Amino acid sequence: MGWDYMLLTPEAIPAYVAGTPRLAGLVDPATLQVREVGDGNLNLVFVCRDADGRGICLKQSLPYVRLVGESWPLTPHRATAEARGYDAAAEWAPEFIPAWYGFDPDRFILAMENLDHETIWRTALNEGLMHPGVEDDMGRYVARLAFYTSVFNLEQKELKGRIAASVNPELCEITENLVFTEPYLDHDHNSWRPGVEPAVMELRHDERHVAEVNSLKVQFMTAAEALIHGDLHTGSVMVEMDGDRGHGKAIDSEFCFYGPVGFDLGALFGNYLAAMARAAARGRPADFTGWVGGLVSGTWAAFEDEMRRLWPERSHRFLNDLYFEDWLLKMLRDGAGFGGCKAIRRIIGLAKVSDIETLDGDAHVAAATAVLRTGSRWIKERHGFTSSSDLEEIARDVIGVEVG
Amino acid sequence: MGWDYMLLTPEAIPAYVAGTPRLAGLVDPATLQVREVGDGNLNLVFVCRDADGRGICLKQSLPYVRLVGESWPLTPHRATAEARGYDAAAEWAPEFIPAWYGFDPDRFILAMENLDHETIWRTALNEGLMHPGVEDDMGRYVARLAFYTSVFNLEQKELKGRIAASVNPELCEITENLVFTEPYLDHDHNSWRPGVEPAVMELRHDERHVAEVNSLKVQFMTAAEALIHGDLHTGSVMVEMDGDRGHGKAIDSEFCFYGPVGFDLGALFGNYLAAMARAAARGRPADFTGWVGGLVSGTWAAFEDEMRRLWPERSHRFLNDLYFEDWLLKMLRDGAGFGGCKAIRRIIGLAKVSDIETLDGDAHVAAATAVLRTGSRWIKERHGFTSSSDLEEIARDVIGVEVG
Repeated sequence: MGWDYMLLTPEAIPAYVAGTPRLAGLVDPATLQVREVGDGNLNLVFVCRDADGRGICLKQSLPYVRLVGESWPLTPHRATAEARGYDAAAEWAPEFIPAWYGFDPDRFILAMENLDHETIWRTALNEGLMHPGVEDDMGRYVARLAFYTSVFNLEQKELKGRIAASVNPELCEITENLVFTEPYLDHDHNSWRPGVEPAVMELRHDERHVAEVNSLKVQFMTAAEALIHGDLHTGSVMVEMDGDRGHGKAIDSEFCFYGPVGFDLGALFGNYLAAMARAAARGRPADFTGWVGGLVSGTWAAFEDEMRRLWPERSHRFLNDLYFEDWLLKMLRDGAGFGGCKAIRRIIGLAKVSDIETLDGDAHVAAATAVLRTGSRWIKERHGFTSSSDLEEIARDVIGVEVG
Repeated sequence: MGWDYMLLTPEAIPAYVAGTPRLAGLVDPATLQVREVGDGNLNLVFVCRDADGRGICLKQSLPYVRLVGESWPLTPHRATAEARGYDAAAEWAPEFIPAWYGFDPDRFILAMENLDHETIWRTALNEGLMHPGVEDDMGRYVARLAFYTSVFNLEQKELKGRIAASVNPELCEITENLVFTEPYLDHDHNSWRPGVEPAVMELRHDERHVAEVNSLKVQFMTAAEALIHGDLHTGSVMVEMDGDRGHGKAIDSEFCFYGPVGFDLGALFGNYLAAMARAAARGRPADFTGWVGGLVSGTWAAFEDEMRRLWPERSHRFLNDLYFEDWLLKMLRDGAGFGGCKAIRRIIGLAKVSDIETLDGDAHVAAATAVLRTGSRWIKERHGFTSSSDLEEIARDVIGVEVG
């Protein structure tokens, strides 16, 4: 299917803003300075600022993915999914996303707050920079979506309508392949350095591990629990400090659909694991490694706290408190399972994480091996987990042995 | 919303058949004898037979439910869902449904094989009539839909498209309310005879029981595993004998949607439980009670056998055999949980079952109590079940104590 819509250019943006009523009041088109900042692989991204310092960010989907050449077309409707994610978050979790200025469905253009003064969380973590509080923000962000977009809050027919409207097969298929399948097959997308081979082979030949990943994959494909972000790794979070407290905002929600809540928790947990392994490999100071080592519990505690705060407001009064305790436990275990899958694919498959990739030699091998072994233990042992510290203890033990 | 479509009458049917090309060859409109057989609560049902003895059955949805007065409007689009169920079964499980002659979406008319010589299974069970083999047929019917309409067989985008197209909120809401919610609330739909009161109160005040029912309800609302029948009780199965072997055909699939496979198994299990309690109360002969007491295992064994036969054909090769064993165990436990819910609601809530309702006095109280207590144990103990005999042993024990 061919796509025919006009791509934005820096020169065309003042007129586009002036001609779009919901945007015209936010910045002065007459004095707008525009800078293209995206890498242009998936999307065009423009940072715009007027003479008064007021800003706006425009993001437009390209109808293909440049990462693997223009031969991989990808529906620009992923911007429709991303807008759906922002719409929901703007209603129910506005403090945890950029200010949201809406969507142009004809040209697949999203408009939002300019965050060019902020940092991508992964970059900050890689540099050893602390933003304490971001882990709390992200736990609350997941909780808000989990509560407000689910049966806990929505009337049944609205819920069913949203589930049907939010199917996002093309983007979900990328996740299904990259996270749950390709790491366990011989596939062009996979690669690892020679020293990591033993840990990769361990996973592949572990039938119990593969069976659990199968189960998590089918759960990802069939459990329409709530609208989830769908790709909530540390590269999808923008951070900044406000005094002693860090703040985080989730971006890039194009993978959003009705799926398992634990998948968003797991994206965070799995990427925290990579950050932990890197911090150990880099020999970061104790305050940093201590903070990074507690990110899983920080996010979990905030998620749980926010859910407990919202629970009494549920519209579905029949759901009792004991059910809620069971539900929380399931979310923890799902988060551990999906977290393991997310961590592992970032070591073996396409789209590796810089946390581990930028380590050299033995340090890389040790960190990558620790992530794989921890991820597998999270997946296989999750049914017995009762606390977020269960995840952290395994990570600490394995990283200590491998990296220490 | 008002509905404006022409309802069928016996007089109008020959012309309707003659004017509908896919039907015209099946019977001779010129000699067609038409008899209205439905109770007219939900649907008009016409049995038609020509001079050569060839038959056809037409079923048309009414735009309301007469059961509780015409004040309860119900979308005639439930016929669209029913047709979707027949379409899928005609492709993948044709021997377990009536021959299917298609759907008229403008007038909500379904055309199928005339089964007026067959018996409703519940009626046969109530009368103590054996149709050995029907339980096997129904297990295979559930397995075929579970396999062919799920990720096991369908390509991902087709699966996602079918999930979205099959949402059936109005009918699902009836199930959600009647099966999972109303039995535990003070509601006009509920009633029971005085002697049953203690067992009803036990359930209602058992927080663990209610929490498990909550969990099953949310699973029913969110787990889009496969296209399921959605209302597969013994009143939705037509039976006949062929020599020593009974055969069953599933009808009335208007509740069909993408949901948990265990819900169809559970509908059978829960209604088998009612039949077991009745057989004990009536003091049926040992061959009958033995057969009825083994229906759960009969259906389960056929389901499992059919799934094992189909499993090697899965298109999703990545799913390994250990995953499949886990999946089977989950289906058994889900079947037990949903079966408990289905059995209980048939005692407490709207639409009670004749199996138990037509018992009198102490026999009614004992049978109803046994169904409630067995159902609750299935629900609460299911996480430890490893075999279908676990369900049957509990049922035998409880029925023995209550009814024996």
